[in-house]
This record gives sequence, C-alpha cells and structure tokens, in this order.
Amino acid sequence: MTEQVKHAIQDDYPADFSHCYGCGRLNQEGHHFRTGWNEDQTVTIYTPKPEHTAIPGFVYGGLIASLVDCHGTGSASLALHRKNGHEPGGAQEPPRFVTAALNIDFLKPIPQDIPLKAIGTPEEVHPKKFNIHTKVFAGDTVCAKAVVTASVMPASFTQQTTE
Amino acid sequence: MTEQVKHAIQDDYPADFSHCYGCGRLNQEGHHFRTGWNEDQTVTIYTPKPEHTAIPGFVYGGLIASLVDCHGTGSASLALHRKNGHEPGGAQEPPRFVTAALNIDFLKPIPQDIPLKAIGTPEEVHPKKFNIHTKVFAGDTVCAKAVVTASVMPASFTQQTTE
Repeated sequence: MTEQVKHAIQDDYPADFSHCYGCGRLNQEGHHFRTGWNEDQTVTIYTPKPEHTAIPGFVYGGLIASLVDCHGTGSASLALHRKNGHEPGGAQEPPRFVTAALNIDFLKPIPQDIPLKAIGTPEEVHPKKFNIHTKVFAGDTVCAKAVVTASVMPASFTQQTTE
Repeated sequence: MTEQVKHAIQDDYPADFSHCYGCGRLNQEGHHFRTGWNEDQTVTIYTPKPEHTAIPGFVYGGLIASLVDCHGTGSASLALHRKNGHEPGGAQEPPRFVTAALNIDFLKPIPQDIPLKAIGTPEEVHPKKFNIHTKVFAGDTVCAKAVVTASVMPASFTQQTTE
C-alpha cells in the first residue's frame, strides 16, 4: 500500500482554489490533505493531531468526515483529469469539484496516533459527477466506509471568487 | 428562532466525555458546539472561523459535517434525556451517544461570516438509536440537509477511557 502520496492533485489546483481548510496548500491553519493515484485507486493519508479526539484515544468523526470529503473531491478531480489524458504533476490544470453529498458509515472506533488511509474507487455517474467509494483504514482495519458524490464546480463559484 | 443556546447538553457531559474536538468544552482547540432544545427541535449555532473556507467566501464542507455530527449526537442525548424525564441544566448526567452514520446533502454554497444554525428533529428508531433529521441554515436559507444516526455509546468505549 502506498505510504505517501507523491503527486497529489491538490498540488496542482490553481492558487484561487487552494484555500480549503481540508486540502488547500495555501490554508495556513488547515489539514493539507493530499490525494493521489495508487494504480486505479485514490489514496489520501493523514495522521490526526492530538486535539482531534472524540473521547481520549479515539479520533473525532468530524475529522473523518473532513478527510473523506476532500479525498472525494480530490479523487473526482484525479478521475476526470485522467479521463482527459492527464496525470497530477503535469502541466495541465486539473478540474475542481465540489461535494454534493457525503455519506459515511462509522464501523469501528478509530484509534489515535496512527496514520489513516482513505482508499477510493471513483465511479463516473455523469460526465460532471462522480461517486467516490471510499474505505478509511487504520492499519489493516476498515474503520469507516463512505460514498462522496462530487460535482464539477459550477461556474458561479468561480465568478464569485474572481470578482 | 433561538439566537443562543442557554442550556446545552454538552455542558452536562461528564468530564471524561468532554474532550471532543467538535463539542467538548474541555478541548482547548476545538469548536465547542453547544446543542439545546427549542421546544421540540434541537439547535446548534456556530459561526465558522475565517480559516474554515472551502474557497474564499464559502464555508468548508468538513466544518458542516463536523457541526452536523456533534449536533446529531447532542440531539440524541437531549432526546433520550427528555424521554427519561430530564432536561439539560439539571442534576442528572445525560446519556452519551456515538455517530453510527452521517448523511449530508449540500444544497447551496454556504456563505462565510454569518452564524449557522443546525435545527434538528430527533426520531427514535430503537431505544438506543435515534435518527436526527437536520437542516443547516445560513440566515433563512437551508444550505444543507442531513440525517445523523446516533447510537448510545457502547460500554467498551467507557471501559477503554476509564482504564
């Protein structure tokens, strides 16, 4: 299993779209989630901080939701970028997605102090919409399963941010 | 509409269960979400911080997921506590819940710099399980809809945290 993500799609997002608290490389306070390919699956690796507790020793579900959310939009971007003939780390700017729906089943308590891996399988359900089927692993244990529905970012978002 | 929560269920959680990054009053770094009754509905109010951006001007979905998550477990605790004859702010310790599932539809971009209100309707689906049907409002606009399935915290959690 990939132990680190070399070429993350978030590294290629244009600066205007790199302020996300979850995955924006320019957000000083954020999590800096990074998502890349591992063959046909997408991978995001993150070790929660000590304060990200639910109860002592276990990770807070909102952090998992955040991880899965940005993993989902990043995975959709990777998938459409690849469909368009491009890989992260290349010269082409990747498409940017927003989350339409987030569905998570929490299967087991998630232990703190170890890296978590979100492993995703992108499914195109429409040329502008992908479902990202994701499992969140702590070691070899699947602690959560999720489906993120990600849609290509509407032009209205772009217009509002480039005013 | 309630503009602030006077008696929050999280104020009554025992100290051992008050370290949640989302709603723990003892987590120095966390969000400190607080959930109370407004007649038969539950309410959590929170103004995202400047860094909680998706793209500039809009709130990051992971923050909404976090809000909905703790609002859900808090609402379930309120509901079971009331069923047992108790209200927050009383002497009785409330039951503590964990999130089994989190399902969110993001309906509209969520503007930054205004208080968000999660309004919930608890539905008992089992004596130890509640679905919390929630709408997240920015002003009068419903920006997200969610259902949180919350289960009474298993004894194994308690044992592990009181070792």
